[in-house]
Amino acid sequence: MSMTTRRPVLRLRVGAPDGAGGTERADTLAVEEPLEIRLAHAGAPDGEPFTVTMRTPGHDLELALGFLLTDGVISAPGDVTSARHCPDAARDADGNPTHNVVEVGLARHVAIPSRALSRRVSSACGICGTESIEAVRARCGTTLAADDVRLDPAVLAGLPEALRAGQRAFARTGGVHAAGLFTPAGDLLCLREDVGRHNAVDKVVGWALQHDRLPLAGLVLQVSGRASFELAQKAVSAGCPVLAAVSAPSSLAVDLALDTGLTLIGFSRGQGFNIYAGDGRIRR
Amino acid sequence: MSMTTRRPVLRLRVGAPDGAGGTERADTLAVEEPLEIRLAHAGAPDGEPFTVTMRTPGHDLELALGFLLTDGVISAPGDVTSARHCPDAARDADGNPTHNVVEVGLARHVAIPSRALSRRVSSACGICGTESIEAVRARCGTTLAADDVRLDPAVLAGLPEALRAGQRAFARTGGVHAAGLFTPAGDLLCLREDVGRHNAVDKVVGWALQHDRLPLAGLVLQVSGRASFELAQKAVSAGCPVLAAVSAPSSLAVDLALDTGLTLIGFSRGQGFNIYAGDGRIRR
Repeated sequence: MSMTTRRPVLRLRVGAPDGAGGTERADTLAVEEPLEIRLAHAGAPDGEPFTVTMRTPGHDLELALGFLLTDGVISAPGDVTSARHCPDAARDADGNPTHNVVEVGLARHVAIPSRALSRRVSSACGICGTESIEAVRARCGTTLAADDVRLDPAVLAGLPEALRAGQRAFARTGGVHAAGLFTPAGDLLCLREDVGRHNAVDKVVGWALQHDRLPLAGLVLQVSGRASFELAQKAVSAGCPVLAAVSAPSSLAVDLALDTGLTLIGFSRGQGFNIYAGDGRIRR
Repeated sequence: MSMTTRRPVLRLRVGAPDGAGGTERADTLAVEEPLEIRLAHAGAPDGEPFTVTMRTPGHDLELALGFLLTDGVISAPGDVTSARHCPDAARDADGNPTHNVVEVGLARHVAIPSRALSRRVSSACGICGTESIEAVRARCGTTLAADDVRLDPAVLAGLPEALRAGQRAFARTGGVHAAGLFTPAGDLLCLREDVGRHNAVDKVVGWALQHDRLPLAGLVLQVSGRASFELAQKAVSAGCPVLAAVSAPSSLAVDLALDTGLTLIGFSRGQGFNIYAGDGRIRR
């Protein structure tokens, strides 16, 4: 279940002496494989398929738990009775077991969801932006709980560098997103990597669920890419008051942040950052 | 139906004279809104929901058609009897019609799909990488048709710059992916932008379907980000022999390319690029 793998690659440099032929070498790539999440419950004790997502192997149970939490299926550790790989459910071309199927057992009190319609859009989402935001608010409570988080801008500006420094797979492949959970002092609590940035966030949230650290009150979620509606929704779902992204946020991510009280930071690149919502949590 | 919108933002620079207070200004953001794709057919003449995806508005009908084609629902212009917005199906907070619902009419001979399970993974995909690749091959034919495409490395290396030059929304937001369809001479046929790179590719494929240019034989699809399995699958589904990405490919994208005869280029950044599969189409 390695996160990276090696493949032969031919490097061409335009105008270089080797330009005509290129240089052959081995390149390290991020692994991408499907993961099927199955749910087991009173009505389906042997588990039934819920969704499939493409992910980088590793921390699969965290991914499944984080996905179920940010999708609104579960909301607390007590909603889950078990979480395990099903090695015999999917075999590779050579007949060997894979890690590509996980099964999560739901407690009796949990409402059984219909199959996830879309990985990118919560099944509860509406068909205009306002409805999408309202669906998140209805599911997660009106707003994030009031808090006295006051972040030092210098600490916040340093988080992307700390995230990058902790990324083992990125250093080798250049092709993996990351999400990191930080304290206001800048200490890293959990860092996860994945070819999908939504998966990286789900893994962090699943880690928090497993360690009974939800909601993520008083913490900062730093992500390596852009801030989409989906990522903002996951931060709010996990009760995290601050989402910081290295790149641009989307309009709907900003609207959701303004509506729910999430502090949304974009273009965080060492020297500074942009605050799109919730500037009260940044010390000035 | 603008692709960009403006929001107030507070810029903080660490250690700058304005550091304590920050600078307020208006920032241009990429719009992100949900799009529901409905299918109308003999069994549901008024249309029924098929999937919802988050996208940047614009070229919505292309997006719907490209999604349906690369998802294996349709394969030719004759499979579609109509494609239209349903402005009354979704209204915004002020009661105004939105462009967030489109309906595609399917011809009688088209097999009606079940609701799309996941936007990221084709509904036909298996639960190990090999199965995922086999599902694509079963759907799209064993391999891409043999061709005599021979690309000049210098032209290929220049495509990312040409793509960037054509990106209107990126220049203003820094937050939008792009996909461009190029001839072997480097001429741009179609460029589309979206917060989701998969959507940008679907818009290009939908454009090609509408202009009866499928399969995309002899052409190059250049994308702004990484090359995931999903993007490689879309290129193969559309019959495009060359997929070039600015960033890294994933392991499964390379495996799919090797298996189907797709030429897969990564880390294409002006001075050169890496060839991960199908180097026979690159002149050396």
